[in-house]
Amino acid sequence: MEAESSVAAAGQDALGRRIIDLAARLAQWSETGDGLTCTYLTPPHRAAAAELRDLMRAAGMTAEIDGVGNVVGRYAAADPAAKTLIVASHYDTVVNAGSYDGRLGILTGLLAVEELHRSGRRLPFHVDVIGFAEEEGVRFAAHYLGSSAIAGRFDMRLLQHRDAGGQSVADVIYKAGFNPENIPSLARRPQDLLGYLEVHIEQGPVLLQEGLPVGIVTSIAGTARYNVSIAGMAGHAGTVPMPGRRDAAAAAAEIVLCVERRCAAAPTLVGTVGKLSVPGGAINVIPGRCELSLDIRAADDATRDAAVTDVLAEIGRIARRRNVSVEVKEIQRGPAVPCSPSLQARLAAAVERAGIVLRYLPSGAGHDAVSFSGVTDIAMLFVRCGNGGISHSPLETITAADADIATRILLDVLVNLGADHGVH
Amino acid sequence: MEAESSVAAAGQDALGRRIIDLAARLAQWSETGDGLTCTYLTPPHRAAAAELRDLMRAAGMTAEIDGVGNVVGRYAAADPAAKTLIVASHYDTVVNAGSYDGRLGILTGLLAVEELHRSGRRLPFHVDVIGFAEEEGVRFAAHYLGSSAIAGRFDMRLLQHRDAGGQSVADVIYKAGFNPENIPSLARRPQDLLGYLEVHIEQGPVLLQEGLPVGIVTSIAGTARYNVSIAGMAGHAGTVPMPGRRDAAAAAAEIVLCVERRCAAAPTLVGTVGKLSVPGGAINVIPGRCELSLDIRAADDATRDAAVTDVLAEIGRIARRRNVSVEVKEIQRGPAVPCSPSLQARLAAAVERAGIVLRYLPSGAGHDAVSFSGVTDIAMLFVRCGNGGISHSPLETITAADADIATRILLDVLVNLGADHGVH
Repeated sequence: MEAESSVAAAGQDALGRRIIDLAARLAQWSETGDGLTCTYLTPPHRAAAAELRDLMRAAGMTAEIDGVGNVVGRYAAADPAAKTLIVASHYDTVVNAGSYDGRLGILTGLLAVEELHRSGRRLPFHVDVIGFAEEEGVRFAAHYLGSSAIAGRFDMRLLQHRDAGGQSVADVIYKAGFNPENIPSLARRPQDLLGYLEVHIEQGPVLLQEGLPVGIVTSIAGTARYNVSIAGMAGHAGTVPMPGRRDAAAAAAEIVLCVERRCAAAPTLVGTVGKLSVPGGAINVIPGRCELSLDIRAADDATRDAAVTDVLAEIGRIARRRNVSVEVKEIQRGPAVPCSPSLQARLAAAVERAGIVLRYLPSGAGHDAVSFSGVTDIAMLFVRCGNGGISHSPLETITAADADIATRILLDVLVNLGADHGVH
Repeated sequence: MEAESSVAAAGQDALGRRIIDLAARLAQWSETGDGLTCTYLTPPHRAAAAELRDLMRAAGMTAEIDGVGNVVGRYAAADPAAKTLIVASHYDTVVNAGSYDGRLGILTGLLAVEELHRSGRRLPFHVDVIGFAEEEGVRFAAHYLGSSAIAGRFDMRLLQHRDAGGQSVADVIYKAGFNPENIPSLARRPQDLLGYLEVHIEQGPVLLQEGLPVGIVTSIAGTARYNVSIAGMAGHAGTVPMPGRRDAAAAAAEIVLCVERRCAAAPTLVGTVGKLSVPGGAINVIPGRCELSLDIRAADDATRDAAVTDVLAEIGRIARRRNVSVEVKEIQRGPAVPCSPSLQARLAAAVERAGIVLRYLPSGAGHDAVSFSGVTDIAMLFVRCGNGGISHSPLETITAADADIATRILLDVLVNLGADHGVH
């Protein structure tokens, strides 16, 4: 095979600048007047879907919104029986979000296909560019509603989850004009899939710190999550001597520092206490209760599980020493998901053809790609974030140059994958 | 002088049992259907005041509700120009309170006077039993509204403080039928006062642990209070490596443990982080902000101030090391208030006549007595709490036996103070 490069020829940021513009255009559909909030099947979310569908059609695809709200565009192969490569990410957002989380992956797919279409090039497989309707889990505390439906893994029990206003997932799907009972029919057959590719912002500082526009994801960390509830003994801040106290917040403080210390002990390991509160706390009352959350991840399960074991053991020791009771409730525990070595190699070849230093890195965040693990080969390309790597924030940024590079690498992978399949 | 004892003759808990009953009766006036909440000038608070006034009249006193809501009962001396001994505490409560905090001090005064009245005994000074309308600071975030008015220290700026419903202190005083402009006229002249005595539950475990029904307060701790606001950098819990994090909650955790460690270093010193929260915290977000409160007290100012200095210095070191910014705002700093040696000696003599081991202890909590420091001699008698010393809680308890002992000690002090003044 002789590799073709669509990157070398570029030399300017035209595709990247279009991505920045399109992301800004999509960001206008928001539940809030200022900032971007676009959660599952709200009116702004439905408007964003319609706009994505129209963009896909304009780029040369057939496109429809499916029964769970996904926007599914197809750049079809000549042979209707050809396999399908999915290029996808999500278009829902967190509250007060940035414009690129999820959407960059849809827009790079969109523009790569538009380039193929513009040059009249067909591939020997269908390219399905999909904007998943739900990944963030904001409105219904349920993640991956979009990608799990396509992957054939939609958990029908999630239909009963309710939002803050009391509406269920089933309710809002009905109101959008779909029938939740039909969700299982959205599933793709594994034998019909060629693979799954997702471009996503890194949401961290690694590429920024190393001066690299893109990196290749080796695996997606499995997350272990717990809610920890500490019960000590409330008391008057002025009258209970220090030695007899059973201060729930002091116990929590030890746990926070234990998590930080233990999770600094391995390279891909991270541990976070993101929620921390003394319910009904008052300045003159010794905390009788304290609640905290725990999130531990690593690129491999063994590293993560060893940290979880150590942290939970230390929580037990802290509780005994301080004479407080601690309830630890596991709320999530997923395995780490490896990316396909062959798709990683294809991404690596395209990155090298673009003259960029190869950097492999694990993803600490979960992504839609996880839904397809075990269904088809998955791979992800990370794009550098600015502003210290911040995401889930209006401060989230990327450059047009990096978006351009990512789009051209994706296009390169598509073209070379087509070449290897022998037909264009 | 030959000391007279009203305690030795007792031998049963009749007065104590009446106090338990009366406290339960007052506790029926509550803003909530279950539990006791009675905050400044609410309808239940006004009803409790009327009931206290009627009880005082039935006990042989003249009694009125004054212009700030205090219930002022007088057991008058024969000579209208005699000095006045104030025996007092407060009848307002915290939210979901116990029945004895404050009210025990009013009821012991009430029953001591009733005993005097029943035996036809007049004292050579007026005994003013006062139920202060406000001490807890719950409704208006302003403490000592009742006692500061009588002590001539009412801060007229507090009239503008507003409750959660938007009503000001001035509004509710007007609605109760009084004119806030007249509050200064409630002030007693220092030269008219003989002293101030307050019986109060300990609100701590010291007497309980030592098996003693009462203790004599040496001083009332001055409180230094701060709000601490930490700003780090929010980030994705899965994607920001541990070494580069600027986690506001981890910085807060170090502060909590520093306060605990430093304030365990001196006997009367206590330090508490009662409020602790990550505003808007999420399980998968590194805390960018954390807020906490700090309350440090000791029996003497030097001990407290040394601890404050050390804690604030350590907070600065933690902030620099973790590259977070910390804003520390002082919200209160009052000096420790000593109790009068001569009144302590009178209490001690009565305690010894009752056959009880003398125990002196500082008060870590603030009390109405503080308002009278510098105005007249003050003294306080602490009464043992049950349930580990818990207070500000429905679990707050005392025994009838202990209430009986406290009442009889108070009566003994009154009688012997009268004997020393040479006229009965």
